[in-house]
Amino acid sequence: MSEWFFPRVLVAGRIAHNVRVRSDGDVITDITVDTQPDRHTFNGVAVPGFANTHSHVFHRGLRGAGEGEDFWSWRREMYRLANRLVPDSYYRLARAAFAEMVAAGYTSVGEFHYVHHQPDGTLYPHHDMELALVNAALDAGIRITLLDTCYLHAGPGVPLGEEQARFSDGDVAGWLERWHALREAMPESPLVRLGAALHSVRAVSPDEMATAVSGLPERAPIHIHVSEQPRENEECQVAYGLTPTAVLERAGVLSDRTTVVHATHLSDDDIAMIARSNTIVSLCPTTEADLGDGIARVKDLLDAGVRLTIGTDEDVVTDPFAELRMVESTARLVSGTRGVIDCDVLWKIGSRNGVESLYPAAGPRSYQTSTPACGGAGLAVGDPADIVVVDPSSPRLAGVDPTRWPLVAAAEDVTATIIAGEWIRRGDTTAEDLRHVLDELRGRDS
Amino acid sequence: MSEWFFPRVLVAGRIAHNVRVRSDGDVITDITVDTQPDRHTFNGVAVPGFANTHSHVFHRGLRGAGEGEDFWSWRREMYRLANRLVPDSYYRLARAAFAEMVAAGYTSVGEFHYVHHQPDGTLYPHHDMELALVNAALDAGIRITLLDTCYLHAGPGVPLGEEQARFSDGDVAGWLERWHALREAMPESPLVRLGAALHSVRAVSPDEMATAVSGLPERAPIHIHVSEQPRENEECQVAYGLTPTAVLERAGVLSDRTTVVHATHLSDDDIAMIARSNTIVSLCPTTEADLGDGIARVKDLLDAGVRLTIGTDEDVVTDPFAELRMVESTARLVSGTRGVIDCDVLWKIGSRNGVESLYPAAGPRSYQTSTPACGGAGLAVGDPADIVVVDPSSPRLAGVDPTRWPLVAAAEDVTATIIAGEWIRRGDTTAEDLRHVLDELRGRDS
Repeated sequence: MSEWFFPRVLVAGRIAHNVRVRSDGDVITDITVDTQPDRHTFNGVAVPGFANTHSHVFHRGLRGAGEGEDFWSWRREMYRLANRLVPDSYYRLARAAFAEMVAAGYTSVGEFHYVHHQPDGTLYPHHDMELALVNAALDAGIRITLLDTCYLHAGPGVPLGEEQARFSDGDVAGWLERWHALREAMPESPLVRLGAALHSVRAVSPDEMATAVSGLPERAPIHIHVSEQPRENEECQVAYGLTPTAVLERAGVLSDRTTVVHATHLSDDDIAMIARSNTIVSLCPTTEADLGDGIARVKDLLDAGVRLTIGTDEDVVTDPFAELRMVESTARLVSGTRGVIDCDVLWKIGSRNGVESLYPAAGPRSYQTSTPACGGAGLAVGDPADIVVVDPSSPRLAGVDPTRWPLVAAAEDVTATIIAGEWIRRGDTTAEDLRHVLDELRGRDS
Repeated sequence: MSEWFFPRVLVAGRIAHNVRVRSDGDVITDITVDTQPDRHTFNGVAVPGFANTHSHVFHRGLRGAGEGEDFWSWRREMYRLANRLVPDSYYRLARAAFAEMVAAGYTSVGEFHYVHHQPDGTLYPHHDMELALVNAALDAGIRITLLDTCYLHAGPGVPLGEEQARFSDGDVAGWLERWHALREAMPESPLVRLGAALHSVRAVSPDEMATAVSGLPERAPIHIHVSEQPRENEECQVAYGLTPTAVLERAGVLSDRTTVVHATHLSDDDIAMIARSNTIVSLCPTTEADLGDGIARVKDLLDAGVRLTIGTDEDVVTDPFAELRMVESTARLVSGTRGVIDCDVLWKIGSRNGVESLYPAAGPRSYQTSTPACGGAGLAVGDPADIVVVDPSSPRLAGVDPTRWPLVAAAEDVTATIIAGEWIRRGDTTAEDLRHVLDELRGRDS
């Protein structure tokens, strides 16, 4: 059991004072406000840890890289990097990038992982790439839901290219077999969970999707890229006469344990399908800006009752506050109004909704909270014991009500991160580790 | 004369090594690369200081404040704050907010100032509000171009409201008289320059604009808000049958010493008028997002050859890198492509173009550079001796080419700011100063 005292804590949408928080294992078991502590554990404002629901952690290696002219030329550069990864460099890159996430206040990550095999497609003997990620997360101290990805085609009816050989298990049966074997090989830890991903309607056919879903445990989280680029929508219409979202609905993929990623170019019907299936949406605002994807229909999704979350995706920015501000900023820019999303909802987009995406309710290691979903944002009994301490003393936050920080704060304001009841000390070698492994992957001396 | 040694410096669009930079007074006089210094003055990468071409510094008091539903409701809240300011609180708020800018790498500010008089419109005896700003800038160590603003009407033919009484000099002659008197009262300092602003086509009629311009010295910089909101365009069409930009052209306001601020909702003709007059545009990306103004036609402006700059405006974010990334991000989001603006151009948008806005060429205290405008970004002989040192050692920048930092870096990466040849030490009371004055202005005990 752990016990923490904070001078201020976000609880039920408000700032409570002199709060004692207790956790048992990785879950918050008690929150008592207006205590009389001898001393405070940390001198900041405690808020729920941020959940990063969509990460391709090796994309960190492309931060600031030269321009492609569009998404598709960027993807070619990304494939070049993907094909240089080996388990050791994958582990080192991931560990350092996860450490950067922890320092920024992310306490869990959904790692959408598809670089499974050797560059020619040969299997590694012991799930080496998958366990490289899991061990990187454990060593960085962050919770990981490994979203092991089924990736079979380059497009509807299009075989994979040579540069995609690492991604494929041949067919759904091969992927399922590996998935279940991996499940047995996963280390026992409250930080680790195995989930699943179907790459996209480009990479998995509707029939394959149905087979994949029926072969997975009932409450495993399922993530899938949807409608990031207009071209995906066009190709999907040509192949199936349906939008990507409609393909997912017919294939039985949409559900309350499913998260669709990006969901940038949706029709009204798409939004209705996502809403009535209680599917979650992962927005990746800084990535969608970096790649010129477009602006998701955030207000329409919220009005339909859809739960939104945030992801770092290509990790061009590692700052949950920057993601949240970008969600609201782009919503304002397209609507011409202010306050599109309540700050209380922004906090939940950053934290609680993300937990629901990575740990669907009623599954193993799900979290039952004592506050109903309509209650205010903040720490709650039954939630993961994932807590971020924000230092209010910077000029940036001076005079700003903490409940409004999603619009104002920055990763640098995070001074401590507690994950599964443990305070994760910052390593001081993160930058050096990143430089070394990136120089190596780019073929330069470090 | 000052002399600085840096391990790396942005010069002519590239990173040069072991560079000695000399300044005399407030101007760079020599740059020598590949020197053999005994030691480096700072251990980071030196880049040109950032110019903040549009600031209403007292808006810092509204950072994170409650939502209005749109720009116009936000403005009512802003007026309430404006009417609580007195010279002392204006000075203290400005000094702290300017210090925050300096720490973030801004080395000059165009302060668009219109809170001239007492709340009932009575004149202060000694330019008290204007000199409060100038002294705040001097004490914070930042260059200021005080853009003293002519503000006469609430809209075409609409008299000012009670809450705008502080802004008005009655008529153009009154404003010009005060402007010239203020010019005599300005302290002598390389950090200080007096410029002018016409608030907008709402606040100054076309005839008044023409009179104002003809009453100013030939090379005084002139700034004006243009087409921030669609409603301004509509009202202008009703009143004059012209767009705001066309009104400015007819009134003789557009020129190479003029900066139009926001320029969000422009027609093709507007862009052509701005381009052929060599008028500068001040974009305020984080403010335009915060207020839901819309996305400027950045690519079209650049294609037409228009010089863009950045401003903090309402100061919801104090981070030049965040502004630059937001310019490019929004341009990508509307175009669906990447690399809309070269990083080299982004550096110039952040620095050189801003200097040209605040110190128009051939005017007093203008800067003549040895590199032509089409040369690469970076420090140059003849430029202001305004230098920002960026620490490359954070995880955020690990493995990222410094020339690409406009897309990646953050204000926290700035470790030293040199203005007019002087290293400006950071005060450690900035946050406290902000809290005190904001509590006072909001009527709370601090």
